Amino acid sequence: MLRRDYDTQVCSIARTLEVIGERWTILIIRDTFNGIRRFEDFQRSLGIARNVLSARLQRLVNEGILEKRLYEERPRRYEYRLTEKGKDLFPVLMALVRFGDRHRAPDGPPYRYFHRGCGGEATTRVCCDRCGADVGPRDLSKEPGPGLSERRAA
Amino acid sequence: MLRRDYDTQVCSIARTLEVIGERWTILIIRDTFNGIRRFEDFQRSLGIARNVLSARLQRLVNEGILEKRLYEERPRRYEYRLTEKGKDLFPVLMALVRFGDRHRAPDGPPYRYFHRGCGGEATTRVCCDRCGADVGPRDLSKEPGPGLSERRAA
Repeated sequence: MLRRDYDTQVCSIARTLEVIGERWTILIIRDTFNGIRRFEDFQRSLGIARNVLSARLQRLVNEGILEKRLYEERPRRYEYRLTEKGKDLFPVLMALVRFGDRHRAPDGPPYRYFHRGCGGEATTRVCCDRCGADVGPRDLSKEPGPGLSERRAA
Repeated sequence: MLRRDYDTQVCSIARTLEVIGERWTILIIRDTFNGIRRFEDFQRSLGIARNVLSARLQRLVNEGILEKRLYEERPRRYEYRLTEKGKDLFPVLMALVRFGDRHRAPDGPPYRYFHRGCGGEATTRVCCDRCGADVGPRDLSKEPGPGLSERRAA
């Protein structure tokens, strides 16, 4: 069992970091979005120690982010695929891409993401689910939700 | 100088993790978005060792995410505020919130974020900057950008 660092934090950011906050984990997830599925290919892409990679993959399977599937019987070989839950990390990845493209890419973005068909570029927005306006931190009112009340009542 | 773990990766995700990927760093940034500015208040919020907190804050100042301002002369006291670059991390934080609210909050979201005025809730979207459609990984074509060509040409 890995140590949970953010256990005392009643916070959806901290809880997400419990799952994806370990070194290399986000890059493993990035690779799966890029179509990588096999241990050897992750290893080649990341260049990390096999035991570290193995532990990270297993953790992601345990957390329901990846599923492990047998794709060859002899020898027995497995591949790793994103679950529906794992696919829900796409906005996190794209938000990281956009920040890096803007602030950490002096020669321009290493990759660009085009909308097939229309040809526009992918962007990330934080917006209001009612009126659709883009919203920043000052436009939002943070209110205690049901998860906090439960904990307080306990 | 801290070790850079992802140096071999020509990738905007990896480069962003170079800045915000250390343990606790994202929660420090979260706290600044929540209005926390002073060392003692970060320490109280996070409950981490003072030397760790101090190192993380200094790193964020060095990276241009936070700026350190003198707010009292005697004794000399400093506060930390998000720079414009730091504020560009807002979509990353909100994407983490949304994932945690959806998958790591069995009692419901600990906090909810309402659009002042209209009363809708904040959401994160990955969308096309031309036609405005929501886009998922399969809707996008990933193409080499100028940052990759530069590196290859070098």
